[in-house]
Amino acid sequence: MSEETQVTFYPWKKTVDVEPETTLLTAAEDAGVSIEGLCAGNGRCGTCKAIIGEGEENLSEMTKAEEQTLSSEQRKNGYRLTCRAKATGTGTVDVTVPPDSQKTAGIVLTEGHELEYALDPVVKKYHVDLPVPSLSDNVADFERINEALVETYDLDLESVDYEVQRELPNRMREEEVEERLEATATVYDGEELIDLEPGLSETAYGLAIDLGTTTIAVYLVNLKNGETEAISSQLNPQTKQGGDIMTRMRYTRRNDDGREVLKREIREGINETIEEVVQEAGVSRDNIYESVFVGNTAMHHLFLGIDPTYVAGSPYVAAREAPIKVKARDLGIDINDAGYVYWLPVSGGWVGPDKVSVLLVSGHYKEPETTVCIDIGTNGEISVGNEDEMLVTSAPAGPALEGAELRYGVRAQAGAIETLRIDPETLDPTYETIEDEPPNGITGSGVIDALAQLFEVGIVDQRGKFRDAVMDHERVRENDDGELEYVVAYAEEAALAEDIVLTQNDIRSIQMAKAAIQAGTRVLMSELDIENPDRVLMAGAFGNYIDKVSAMTIGMYPDIDEDDVVSLGNAAGVGAKLALLDKERRTEAERIVDEVSYFEIAGTDVFQENFMASMYLPHQDFDLYPRVKERVRKSRELEAARLEENAEEH
Amino acid sequence: MSEETQVTFYPWKKTVDVEPETTLLTAAEDAGVSIEGLCAGNGRCGTCKAIIGEGEENLSEMTKAEEQTLSSEQRKNGYRLTCRAKATGTGTVDVTVPPDSQKTAGIVLTEGHELEYALDPVVKKYHVDLPVPSLSDNVADFERINEALVETYDLDLESVDYEVQRELPNRMREEEVEERLEATATVYDGEELIDLEPGLSETAYGLAIDLGTTTIAVYLVNLKNGETEAISSQLNPQTKQGGDIMTRMRYTRRNDDGREVLKREIREGINETIEEVVQEAGVSRDNIYESVFVGNTAMHHLFLGIDPTYVAGSPYVAAREAPIKVKARDLGIDINDAGYVYWLPVSGGWVGPDKVSVLLVSGHYKEPETTVCIDIGTNGEISVGNEDEMLVTSAPAGPALEGAELRYGVRAQAGAIETLRIDPETLDPTYETIEDEPPNGITGSGVIDALAQLFEVGIVDQRGKFRDAVMDHERVRENDDGELEYVVAYAEEAALAEDIVLTQNDIRSIQMAKAAIQAGTRVLMSELDIENPDRVLMAGAFGNYIDKVSAMTIGMYPDIDEDDVVSLGNAAGVGAKLALLDKERRTEAERIVDEVSYFEIAGTDVFQENFMASMYLPHQDFDLYPRVKERVRKSRELEAARLEENAEEH
Repeated sequence: MSEETQVTFYPWKKTVDVEPETTLLTAAEDAGVSIEGLCAGNGRCGTCKAIIGEGEENLSEMTKAEEQTLSSEQRKNGYRLTCRAKATGTGTVDVTVPPDSQKTAGIVLTEGHELEYALDPVVKKYHVDLPVPSLSDNVADFERINEALVETYDLDLESVDYEVQRELPNRMREEEVEERLEATATVYDGEELIDLEPGLSETAYGLAIDLGTTTIAVYLVNLKNGETEAISSQLNPQTKQGGDIMTRMRYTRRNDDGREVLKREIREGINETIEEVVQEAGVSRDNIYESVFVGNTAMHHLFLGIDPTYVAGSPYVAAREAPIKVKARDLGIDINDAGYVYWLPVSGGWVGPDKVSVLLVSGHYKEPETTVCIDIGTNGEISVGNEDEMLVTSAPAGPALEGAELRYGVRAQAGAIETLRIDPETLDPTYETIEDEPPNGITGSGVIDALAQLFEVGIVDQRGKFRDAVMDHERVRENDDGELEYVVAYAEEAALAEDIVLTQNDIRSIQMAKAAIQAGTRVLMSELDIENPDRVLMAGAFGNYIDKVSAMTIGMYPDIDEDDVVSLGNAAGVGAKLALLDKERRTEAERIVDEVSYFEIAGTDVFQENFMASMYLPHQDFDLYPRVKERVRKSRELEAARLEENAEEH
Repeated sequence: MSEETQVTFYPWKKTVDVEPETTLLTAAEDAGVSIEGLCAGNGRCGTCKAIIGEGEENLSEMTKAEEQTLSSEQRKNGYRLTCRAKATGTGTVDVTVPPDSQKTAGIVLTEGHELEYALDPVVKKYHVDLPVPSLSDNVADFERINEALVETYDLDLESVDYEVQRELPNRMREEEVEERLEATATVYDGEELIDLEPGLSETAYGLAIDLGTTTIAVYLVNLKNGETEAISSQLNPQTKQGGDIMTRMRYTRRNDDGREVLKREIREGINETIEEVVQEAGVSRDNIYESVFVGNTAMHHLFLGIDPTYVAGSPYVAAREAPIKVKARDLGIDINDAGYVYWLPVSGGWVGPDKVSVLLVSGHYKEPETTVCIDIGTNGEISVGNEDEMLVTSAPAGPALEGAELRYGVRAQAGAIETLRIDPETLDPTYETIEDEPPNGITGSGVIDALAQLFEVGIVDQRGKFRDAVMDHERVRENDDGELEYVVAYAEEAALAEDIVLTQNDIRSIQMAKAAIQAGTRVLMSELDIENPDRVLMAGAFGNYIDKVSAMTIGMYPDIDEDDVVSLGNAAGVGAKLALLDKERRTEAERIVDEVSYFEIAGTDVFQENFMASMYLPHQDFDLYPRVKERVRKSRELEAARLEENAEEH
């Protein structure tokens, strides 16, 4: 048997036996552990450093390269370059790879949902070491770089950005060098040279951008370690031309330059948000090489300047489903000029890259459990199924669930009522507001709570109508329009000069919104012969704050155990980050579009029928929601006892 | 034996035996004959029509599709659609494929040099027949087109031009259709959708552009049949910033916006020339989808806006060698917005796409004969060798050979002396001018004639100096600067108010120009151990007009039989056309760059030595030019006899 050294890599605890003269970097590869190596084993960049624990004596002597590259502090702490340190063929060695030198990382979602990914971004930086041209070696600049990439990294470029090509001769001669030029090549997707910097650089950033109908959210992500270094968001400036998509679409049809106006506004809004993250993190725009976008199909079209008319109306045809990759400069997005804007694919019709992104994060399309996943927004995107078959659709919920278009509905803001309970005995409410400010309105999660509670305690019936039994309650009254309403907060406790109420019309709007989502879900479930799913996933920035029980009470999702309902947080934005950091996720996104079937519900009879039945609380067929039915039954028993008590008193 | 029909295709006279039910189109394929088929055998486009000669009865009946697609005139003349007409399995059929339906063509060069090519352009148009979207089939617009291309042509697109994608929904709905939408997709390189037109279109054009230091030449080429439909040329507007490249390069270094100014000027000059061909042929710019460019490396750099500094000086490093493909709109070239500018590759240093183009036309790099090929211009590009090895270099000839920088040198224009003979007895000249106008100067070919004749008849010696023996001739005189000169035309016969002369300095300039080319050629020849080549090829717009014997007399090329010297005409421009029409030629151009070795002569001792020896007429070592030596010997005998006669007379 030959001499071998047993090397164990931490934190993975992976062990491998290697022959004498094997570098630790090679040993790591054999062990299936990924260590950074920017200079391809030349001992120059220091990115492959690791800490040697026990067994230091079983490695080769410290090399000159290591002495130059590692600081004396690092050397004292037991650091070696894994590309230089070699096994001697005896004993064991423990190697701890610090996070900086690891090629993989994990990110954690808002709701504690942990996601693993390979740190393998589309944009990568490569260190090249070029001979200075001479009469006997006057190969052209681009070819010189490419030859070095082929030789060192086995990477043969297909192209170079035109503007980078233009400046190549000057960039390569900024520094006066005698024999060798050290430079860093930034390569997009292993194909295109998009930057060349003199010297050694590791700085590479990307943006994940969630382009919502209402909100733009921008995440600045370090492509070297996957860390999110800054986040910023702002109102989508297109709201000036309409809070909802349909109004904006009408604007594009009624104004000749409408499409250009909307495109310019969204671009300006994005650039302002980029400016904020750039300022916050102190990063140069030139080091941001890509922006991965998600959003619904309409925002996708409006951002790209594509006419959204035909996806807006029947038969809901998008202009494109495949991912879109466009130079940032062609769209006026303020990152590196040669960088790219990348949109995840459209699934079909209104089901856009945002939903594909949610599926990328939840992964439920490839799991055996039957899942219902709802991305709550002005349009609710719904997917139902499991690894065998999954259907996806979009339901026109409207803005009521976000607190808009209700008499006292507000967006999530300080003072907005976000949770609400009604005492089943007194029928009086208690509530919490954002930042504990005096209430100034009711936001999405509060609206859902309110309807659920009104129904559960018996103020409204299954059809959402105020019940005769509560007509004599102080908080139930008729307003000046002759409409019934429930007082959530009296003027004296509120930040307003008037009472905050929920009217019969408001209740109807909420019913319609939840009915759209519920009907969409039920159509897909019945299409797949699913009685009840194993799990429910709720996504959407706003989805996080919804009370699971309240949402089930009004019928927003099927009646299942509370523990089987999971909030994914803003999964769309997280999916954009995944696609930014791990190029395999882009392939997966395209696979999702292939594997998941888009099912158009708009204008179908089956949707209309389900919609009517779903207008009821929680549904026309109460038996579909046994848990809700049981709670309501108990509540009604309490009410009966109370009424009996009252009758006795009188 | 099964039943078969014998089909013969004309004009190729290719015969094939086919089974019953075989279409003539399939039979043509089997016979190795290429017939157009735009609609992929659907009987709609009529592009595959052919005339049936004998054997009509051995084909299937005329189909409904043929009756609709072919005119009654065509049907009367025996036309059938080869995609519809099927063999019956008996007898013979003669099929004549008219040029319109042929997929191959041949072009003829100015000098009668014939070149075959396959008509297989990078830009192709495909007819698609799309189902109109419905709720049950609402796949996106781009995917709908791609599915049709995959199904009908087995063509799976990789991308779509961003601006085309933007307008796709509207282009596809310009015409109101019930069930099917007929449209034409224009595809670049089998990969990218660059145009979509409603209805059936076959109109596709390309430009071949020869971007010379002095002249821009634009050829408008029909991509459907390979015909050149218009040609125009104009002076390169960059000449304002210097007639030669070095002056323009100094301009870019001395002016901050110099590079941009030169880029803008050349772009404007090209666009004006494009305007001329577009007007002349009555073609829409939107139907021009590509421009293939050739030019020297410096023009390549200046056009693209690349700093030419480092290719201008030692060690002569170009910014890029590989072909360059850039969207026309990014360069401001006025063709279809989504179309491309394509530059053939650079060979190395100053040896640019123009020389690669010449090699593409001459093909001598793949032939067994040893060839010297010289592209005459301000820089002479020289290639020497054969299929085993070929070297290429660039020699700084300067503008004298184009008639510039001589006292009475002019560009090729009406009145320019283009040929010149000197009577060996009287030493008086006869000449021809362009358009037979009175002379106003001497142009390139006239300059070479003049020096050759002055030497041959004994007015100047091998070193180019006026000989004592002719000092008493009326036409040999000293001018006001004390410089000797020869009178080519007296003022009374000229269009000028003064005599047209060739001075001692002029002669020296011509010697230097020819010596550069000659020395470059000799360095390559000696590098390859070639004593004398089998052939000499001369290229360049101006090369056409040079008298072969005169050029050899002054030593511009090696002493070989006149019949082995061939003019290729403006081969650079023709090569650009080839690359435009036959995409395989682009691969060949890249292969040329790989196979041909760039040999840098600038600044080398061996070039300097050869240059000094080449300053002599025809060369310091007269024995290298036995044919010239023999002619000069005869001339000197005549002179001796004449002198003797004169002596006897006195």
